Amino acid sequence: MDPFDRLLAEIEPLTGPPAAPDFLLTWEKSEPEIRRILAVAEALRILRRENRSLRCFDSGLAVSLFRDQSTRTRFSFASAANLLGLAVADLDEGRSQIAHGETVRETANMISFFTEFIGIRDDIFLGAGHRFMEEVAAAVAEGHREGVLEQRPAVINLQSDVDHPTQSLADLMHLARHFGSLEALRGKKLAMTWAYSPSYGKPLSVPQGVIGLMTRFGMEVVLAHPEGYSLIPEVVERAAAFARESGGGFRVVPSMEEAFAEADAVYPKSWAPYRVMERRTALLRAGDTAGLKELERECLAENARHRNWECTEAMMRRTKNGRALYLHCLPADISGVSCPAGEVAASVFERYRIPTYVQAGYKPYVIAAVMLTARFAHPARLLDALRRRAAPRLGPPPVGA
Amino acid sequence: MDPFDRLLAEIEPLTGPPAAPDFLLTWEKSEPEIRRILAVAEALRILRRENRSLRCFDSGLAVSLFRDQSTRTRFSFASAANLLGLAVADLDEGRSQIAHGETVRETANMISFFTEFIGIRDDIFLGAGHRFMEEVAAAVAEGHREGVLEQRPAVINLQSDVDHPTQSLADLMHLARHFGSLEALRGKKLAMTWAYSPSYGKPLSVPQGVIGLMTRFGMEVVLAHPEGYSLIPEVVERAAAFARESGGGFRVVPSMEEAFAEADAVYPKSWAPYRVMERRTALLRAGDTAGLKELERECLAENARHRNWECTEAMMRRTKNGRALYLHCLPADISGVSCPAGEVAASVFERYRIPTYVQAGYKPYVIAAVMLTARFAHPARLLDALRRRAAPRLGPPPVGA
Amino acid sequence: MDPFDRLLAEIEPLTGPPAAPDFLLTWEKSEPEIRRILAVAEALRILRRENRSLRCFDSGLAVSLFRDQSTRTRFSFASAANLLGLAVADLDEGRSQIAHGETVRETANMISFFTEFIGIRDDIFLGAGHRFMEEVAAAVAEGHREGVLEQRPAVINLQSDVDHPTQSLADLMHLARHFGSLEALRGKKLAMTWAYSPSYGKPLSVPQGVIGLMTRFGMEVVLAHPEGYSLIPEVVERAAAFARESGGGFRVVPSMEEAFAEADAVYPKSWAPYRVMERRTALLRAGDTAGLKELERECLAENARHRNWECTEAMMRRTKNGRALYLHCLPADISGVSCPAGEVAASVFERYRIPTYVQAGYKPYVIAAVMLTARFAHPARLLDALRRRAAPRLGPPPVGA
Repeated sequence: MDPFDRLLAEIEPLTGPPAAPDFLLTWEKSEPEIRRILAVAEALRILRRENRSLRCFDSGLAVSLFRDQSTRTRFSFASAANLLGLAVADLDEGRSQIAHGETVRETANMISFFTEFIGIRDDIFLGAGHRFMEEVAAAVAEGHREGVLEQRPAVINLQSDVDHPTQSLADLMHLARHFGSLEALRGKKLAMTWAYSPSYGKPLSVPQGVIGLMTRFGMEVVLAHPEGYSLIPEVVERAAAFARESGGGFRVVPSMEEAFAEADAVYPKSWAPYRVMERRTALLRAGDTAGLKELERECLAENARHRNWECTEAMMRRTKNGRALYLHCLPADISGVSCPAGEVAASVFERYRIPTYVQAGYKPYVIAAVMLTARFAHPARLLDALRRRAAPRLGPPPVGA
Repeated sequence: MDPFDRLLAEIEPLTGPPAAPDFLLTWEKSEPEIRRILAVAEALRILRRENRSLRCFDSGLAVSLFRDQSTRTRFSFASAANLLGLAVADLDEGRSQIAHGETVRETANMISFFTEFIGIRDDIFLGAGHRFMEEVAAAVAEGHREGVLEQRPAVINLQSDVDHPTQSLADLMHLARHFGSLEALRGKKLAMTWAYSPSYGKPLSVPQGVIGLMTRFGMEVVLAHPEGYSLIPEVVERAAAFARESGGGFRVVPSMEEAFAEADAVYPKSWAPYRVMERRTALLRAGDTAGLKELERECLAENARHRNWECTEAMMRRTKNGRALYLHCLPADISGVSCPAGEVAASVFERYRIPTYVQAGYKPYVIAAVMLTARFAHPARLLDALRRRAAPRLGPPPVGA
Repeated sequence: MDPFDRLLAEIEPLTGPPAAPDFLLTWEKSEPEIRRILAVAEALRILRRENRSLRCFDSGLAVSLFRDQSTRTRFSFASAANLLGLAVADLDEGRSQIAHGETVRETANMISFFTEFIGIRDDIFLGAGHRFMEEVAAAVAEGHREGVLEQRPAVINLQSDVDHPTQSLADLMHLARHFGSLEALRGKKLAMTWAYSPSYGKPLSVPQGVIGLMTRFGMEVVLAHPEGYSLIPEVVERAAAFARESGGGFRVVPSMEEAFAEADAVYPKSWAPYRVMERRTALLRAGDTAGLKELERECLAENARHRNWECTEAMMRRTKNGRALYLHCLPADISGVSCPAGEVAASVFERYRIPTYVQAGYKPYVIAAVMLTARFAHPARLLDALRRRAAPRLGPPPVGA
């Protein structure tokens, strides 16, 4: 069987619409749903390489709403939408009326008349981003139920305060391809560790997303951070429970050294302590600039005490055969390159630079797969039809349009 | 005959290109042209529900130029363009060179080489917005005549100082669907009334658009506002003349109570007095910030004298069986929700919230119908071809691309 | 043979991919490559007039990155991309992370997963714009080589500090059409001259692009400017060498009068002296606002000494039969219209206004031709297939999608 047909066979028994149309947290999705998304992403990648048209939306909008800066996720979302035939429309709150007291409920409907997907990044305020996405989802669900919207737009989390599913799914795809398969991840040790950065206030969603997903596939996940840099407790508990269920492992250790020991893969990345994010959220809400300055000063001073949390060559030598796979969601704080001292030594990063680009390159496929499985109850059938179709992605189609 | 064929039969005798390609004011269009647009909008809605591809532009741009904030009209324009196959390009004057003294004439041509439609919102300056649209239309007409442009882009008014035709046409479609048909509107009483808002300077285009359109279809239109809050006199005179021609009615009354009495439909909405908009325009032009502050203070004080102009439950009870259709172009100033006291009581708005969303939902279809009738001399023939075509809106096309 | 078939026959022997995928400088392209682009542009123009679909990309992004304001080039790029089936995605550095120290190398890859073209305008910093484009090109070349990117995006210079190839190619197309053919340009005198403007700091790329391209087609190019307003020396030397090779001519003269004498075509346009751009670049880099103010004051004073460098009616009378073709890249500084005194007299500009619009109108076709020849090794074959295809640009396609 060729790899594409094998993927179709894998997807086939997993048909039916997803339990919920939105994708907000990986742990709200069943394991078969996650597997289906990865298999569809892989199938799309094959079809694109075969120069086949993947257009399955003749029209429709993919709305993107970024409440925080983004380059790679923004372009991944735009690329995925375009691949399937959708046009991107940015809801720029600076220009729109959300900023002027209009209710979320109303706006969500007003942007959704012909909208298939709403991609949202909202990761600044702890306790708010995920809730905002749920509000938008509830609003368009009501709009669809009440006949306002002819289709139910699916909300896609492009990074919240809680999870960053399109990132962690791309990470999982990268791991699976690197080690051979999803099954091959079983028993592999992944070190998700805090790393020093000269900035502060980085979201928690990446480490939370990683520990909440990789524990479901039997990996031995080790979370490491200095004292006080904890993640949201519920997410950590969930990761532990997933590890128990999947036969993998999960533990929290207090040093990068311990986490890296014999690790098969490492993910060293800075984040702000959960408690700091709570204080910061309160200060941001209050518009307390002086308070924010003071908090930043405090946190940078605290960060500075952990400069040794750097992914150096010595640290890498502690990993399995000294050759663990280095992962990063990018951009990394590279010592001597993007900052005097940061998350990773320049020589380590340079060795893994291309692999981190490859890792990022799975994101457009993952997003396209999330879209496709949210809309089509029989993705295998659709993929098969796309492959049989005579239309090339590049070059004039043979007949008709 | 099925509803779609009935629509085609209705459209068929109304073929031929519109008298003028642009859509700036509803009263520049003949009644058959208006009817044709509504019928095409309805037909497009049916085809979209039948999951048919409505792509009839293989390429081409729809340029949008917003000189005032917009969410719902921006997305309606983008949705309509996308539905028919066009890509949206925003002319953001902040980024472009219009802001740097380049003549309108030149810019209009420079953005139009492959442009099918130019949608413009320009409602800030009284006496300027409509004139600007005319200038753009004249410029591209010259460009087309002189061989600069291979097609004549049609200018679509997305709200000027005078009219807001895509809104009033969506309102008309909503009324016609609510009461059964355009014919059923004959003799129905519509109260277009001013309402209190804690802001000032809202454009006149919505009430002007409503009285200038609904009077043409035999409705009994009652315009109500406090003394001094008049609209542009020429528009009011035109509404009166239309009512005489159509056998409907038009009068101006000094109280919301009188307007609401036995009304079939009510449209309570704040606007700034015409005279205030004139003063404001002069001050904005002069960059007189102090003068603007003073004007705002004066106007808010004057507004505050009319707090009782609120669409309350008591007010609604005065309408026909206490059950008039409540309309609003959104966003509404809802008392106790978006402001302490505003245009409408929270309980009234909540009861009609979904219907106002539905009302807004006609706008993308209306805009698509304006586009389609501006470009295709035989819309019925085109719609018929779209229906016969085997291409789905969602799902892979059966053959070719 | 009909004109289209003649073009195909002209293109046919020029097949094969371009030597380099990027288009940064016209003088990096061979003369056959330039001829091929012009012929393809002309063929696309014919097909579009015949209402044929020119879609040959089923999906894919055209990323635009403007580091300086643009209206006409931005819309030309968007139009060209749309004509061929690509979606435009703007990389707005204000919103993206380039502004935050992320390396060019990484960002270039992150925006390129599904990207076919990257159009860049970067003309503010002398010595930097062209170099930046080369960096981006090198980054995506590495990404493609290393398996990060499945296709190699081609970088298109939309104006650098050195060249403005899409402008000069449109200018060349305009000249060729005006005088009958590329061959007819041989021996024709073109005056590329500095002209007075009340602003300062305009880029050098237009005059450099013009002298570096027209000298290759046997034109007698005369460059004129006041003392001290020289261009980048290497570019001037290259123009002289091209003239020698092509049998054309190139000389620098110190007066507009001399340049205009018996000229067949004139291109009067302001620019800043090369030396000033060097100083300005250093000041901009240093963020030296006071220094920039002082430089501006000095330069405007120097400019003011050359107010007589204006394309007046008297000046035009010196040209061949008083009827030289006036060219401008727009917007022009028109005396008494856009400024009290500027590059061109109002009556002269008005006489050539429509021709300058026509000149600008070739740019979308030129850009589309650059795209098409960068991607398809056999453009004649592709164009032929596009012509045979039954799909209209406007109207429903006969079968399939």
